[in-house]
Amino acid sequence: MQGQMMDFSLDTQAILRRGGQIFGNQEVVTRLTDGSYHRYTLREFERRVHRLINVLRDLGIQPGDRVGTLCWNHYRHLELYFAISSMGAVLHTLNIRLSEEQLSYIINHADDQVIFVDTSLTSVLEAVEDECPNVRNYVVLDDQGETAETSLSNQLDYETLLAAASDQATLPDLDENSAAAMCYTSGTTGNPKGVVYSHRSIYLHTMAVMTTDGYGLSQREVVLPFVPMFHANAWGLPYAALFSGCRLVLPGAQPTAAILAKIMIDQKVTTAAGVPAIWNMLYQHLKQENLSLDTVETLIVGGSAAPRAMIEKFDKEFNITILHLWGMTEMSPLGTVGRIRSHMEDWSYDEQLDIRMKQGVPAAGVEIRIQDDNGNLLPWDGKTIGELTVRGPWVASGYYNNPEASKSFTEDGWFRTGDMVTINEEGYMQIADRSKDLIKSGGEWISSVDMENCIMAYNGVAEAAVVARPDDKWDERPVAFVVSADSANPLTEEQIRTHLLETFAKWQVPGVEDVRFIDVVPKTSVGKFDKKVLRQRLEG
Amino acid sequence: MQGQMMDFSLDTQAILRRGGQIFGNQEVVTRLTDGSYHRYTLREFERRVHRLINVLRDLGIQPGDRVGTLCWNHYRHLELYFAISSMGAVLHTLNIRLSEEQLSYIINHADDQVIFVDTSLTSVLEAVEDECPNVRNYVVLDDQGETAETSLSNQLDYETLLAAASDQATLPDLDENSAAAMCYTSGTTGNPKGVVYSHRSIYLHTMAVMTTDGYGLSQREVVLPFVPMFHANAWGLPYAALFSGCRLVLPGAQPTAAILAKIMIDQKVTTAAGVPAIWNMLYQHLKQENLSLDTVETLIVGGSAAPRAMIEKFDKEFNITILHLWGMTEMSPLGTVGRIRSHMEDWSYDEQLDIRMKQGVPAAGVEIRIQDDNGNLLPWDGKTIGELTVRGPWVASGYYNNPEASKSFTEDGWFRTGDMVTINEEGYMQIADRSKDLIKSGGEWISSVDMENCIMAYNGVAEAAVVARPDDKWDERPVAFVVSADSANPLTEEQIRTHLLETFAKWQVPGVEDVRFIDVVPKTSVGKFDKKVLRQRLEG
Repeated sequence: MQGQMMDFSLDTQAILRRGGQIFGNQEVVTRLTDGSYHRYTLREFERRVHRLINVLRDLGIQPGDRVGTLCWNHYRHLELYFAISSMGAVLHTLNIRLSEEQLSYIINHADDQVIFVDTSLTSVLEAVEDECPNVRNYVVLDDQGETAETSLSNQLDYETLLAAASDQATLPDLDENSAAAMCYTSGTTGNPKGVVYSHRSIYLHTMAVMTTDGYGLSQREVVLPFVPMFHANAWGLPYAALFSGCRLVLPGAQPTAAILAKIMIDQKVTTAAGVPAIWNMLYQHLKQENLSLDTVETLIVGGSAAPRAMIEKFDKEFNITILHLWGMTEMSPLGTVGRIRSHMEDWSYDEQLDIRMKQGVPAAGVEIRIQDDNGNLLPWDGKTIGELTVRGPWVASGYYNNPEASKSFTEDGWFRTGDMVTINEEGYMQIADRSKDLIKSGGEWISSVDMENCIMAYNGVAEAAVVARPDDKWDERPVAFVVSADSANPLTEEQIRTHLLETFAKWQVPGVEDVRFIDVVPKTSVGKFDKKVLRQRLEG
Repeated sequence: MQGQMMDFSLDTQAILRRGGQIFGNQEVVTRLTDGSYHRYTLREFERRVHRLINVLRDLGIQPGDRVGTLCWNHYRHLELYFAISSMGAVLHTLNIRLSEEQLSYIINHADDQVIFVDTSLTSVLEAVEDECPNVRNYVVLDDQGETAETSLSNQLDYETLLAAASDQATLPDLDENSAAAMCYTSGTTGNPKGVVYSHRSIYLHTMAVMTTDGYGLSQREVVLPFVPMFHANAWGLPYAALFSGCRLVLPGAQPTAAILAKIMIDQKVTTAAGVPAIWNMLYQHLKQENLSLDTVETLIVGGSAAPRAMIEKFDKEFNITILHLWGMTEMSPLGTVGRIRSHMEDWSYDEQLDIRMKQGVPAAGVEIRIQDDNGNLLPWDGKTIGELTVRGPWVASGYYNNPEASKSFTEDGWFRTGDMVTINEEGYMQIADRSKDLIKSGGEWISSVDMENCIMAYNGVAEAAVVARPDDKWDERPVAFVVSADSANPLTEEQIRTHLLETFAKWQVPGVEDVRFIDVVPKTSVGKFDKKVLRQRLEG
């Protein structure tokens, strides 16, 4: 027996309509590089999206075609998010920090027909243009960044096109399972792999983001996604902003910690989202300049684990809650959220912090489990480490045109995350390590993440990354790369070792020669510690 | 081009799994009639649901079969909610306040195979048993209510069956569009009409309920649904409780205002949900007994409009927020939520109350519009009255086996609510009246709802209902039925008229002979003012 409910398509058109109609007076604010702000209402936004849909059609874009964007976080990028998907085409966000090889690979692999690019980023494309013969047009968006004369062929100007287009567009009926967007994940080996989001997955992910125990977004929030819109849908915030009616504040081109602080104060931001590295820089800036952020309540952290010391410092010195998320490009990206539960409210601060250090419990809709190498399910005891496998309506079922993809899925249809984790009795997941980042020494595991967190909690440490080096006797030994916060007062190897010995067993702590001071931890294109580079240094 | 996301079924099994696994330590608490509380964890709950699934199978229930429940709000009813739908059968909640004719009609129309009934409600079924020959079994649940010897044939005992069943059940793969539950809506004319909820609609409705601007449910809430589980899924709270992990407190058989107050205090309830009449009774009780409800933050009100005076009294005297919802059985039921927006926070209390008196903006996922008699769309100006039409993934597309249903839908697929409303520029909907309840006098409309609210705001008025009487000269004239709060100090007709003249035009105010004092406003089976009965009194 079937239900008798409307066959209502879950798609980005519905999100766009709600933004324009119910929250038509709400503003989208973008920081411009001259320090001023661009602002318009969601009603005006919706009209420009309709113009843009007509532009895309004039450029020959058909439903299903991939359209690339190489842009910072700004209102025009938001217009592209909604116009491309709502007309039935596929938004392909290009990561500005990819190598030339990777960039041309993904443009060709996705078969992008047209690419929209910021003036300040045209040089990135110029370098690969010859390798990408199928791109018919480059449409340039003036982001007020540093503009070079660009040699890109078949160049068009965004605003000129929009000005000539009608602001009335008829949108097609969409199949909710059709593709709306795609994003490549760089991975550690081989070519980047494309994740293809459906309208349905985006819609459902948006609902999860808006639950009180998700990000808890409401109309009353002012939200700043520092996380780039070219990275995993900016964690879903562009969609959630329109669906919840919150005020979206976009940081524009090349934001720094100082710029972020200014925007937060100017625009009365309540919630911002980014990787730990940026909040670390923000913290340093706030201290140096003696600033406070009175309106900010929550800093959402994902991409890497937030160090305990960071959570504590923001709590105690700024009354700002660091909210721990964990996700993956393959998960749209929201997987888990690290909130404490009602029965923990009586716990000591340190006990609560133990919980908040975990990546958290699955967002409503996501399911998790841990498995051993043979696929057996492991207990949820908070101790047993196994590989995290996940499923849910916004988890990828494969990679775009990639026959290797099957390795990433279990036989019964769960996605293998590659993360080695524990889950406790209440469903709190904690990452022990990426499976490749766990250090196996003398037959026992050492968590590089735990060791990094421990080092970063030490006074005078700015950053730390721990990787394995091969060792004849022990198989592997940990090497700690440490950045001193104050180069005028550098720390010593023995200080780090002594500090580690308070938490770790003696056999786990790196030897003196394996504590190495560096100027900065190298980062990947999405701001994570790039352990590949560190490992190469060890070899080199 | 299709998305490459998991084909994950949105169904009640996923909600059940999450409750048992992630929130396994959370408790469900039920008030028993002896004043004690039954409590168990969601982990235990899930095991009993599995037992119950085995019981249902032993009783011959097949996927798609309808299974009736005639029960109060308690843990066994919650078990039935999840067991029946998760095994693929269809939960049919029977309203305990229906007439015998209506009850036998819906049991036969739905073709219920088995009915689960509370001991205290068996007499309701005995009266119709002979009219319902297709019901194979009656399974009796001991709700500790007044138990009569029951003559029901083919009687079985719930706990005896459960004790004999295994607590391990394999659940079938479900099509998310298959039926999970049904509920009949009595309407004003003709036979009750059946609404058939799909797994998908329930899942999506649950997500909407959990958004911050929906009910805002989180794990930290303690939620008491006074709204019956036999009425429109208790507004979705049974499902949302398991999915959000909040603590569910169920009031058991025949709760009164005094019982509610006790439960709220005993169990530290934070949010409760019910019709205005019950909160009015609760208010009277709190004042009489000089009680406060320190943990209660929100009383969710639906079913009828909350009088302004009630919202104000709870705000000012108890620091409890009345949250206005509007919905319909055909909408699962959530349609709109009446929260103020950030830019209104600077407004005066009275201005905010003007907004909170409206039924609110559509919940994320629901779309609304207003139309005139010819189907033309009307402007959102807060003034123009038209019929509200709605659509969304949890709105009915028809009624079960009812060819008359097409009248309730527009040609382009929206549901006609029968409510006459305004919508303002920001999407706030306000009900002027049910179309049949609007009073047309001398060619102009009078809103019976506005007039009722005005009268109920007058000191000394307990309740008031306004209906139209036919009038030779004016077509219709309003008649106000008024209940004095203190029968020792009754109000006069002129007091009511003088009070109304402060707000209404002279021609709108009922004449002296049209203000009538009564002891109580008659209510429908779901607690709404029964204007049908009042109109009959005018005729009689």
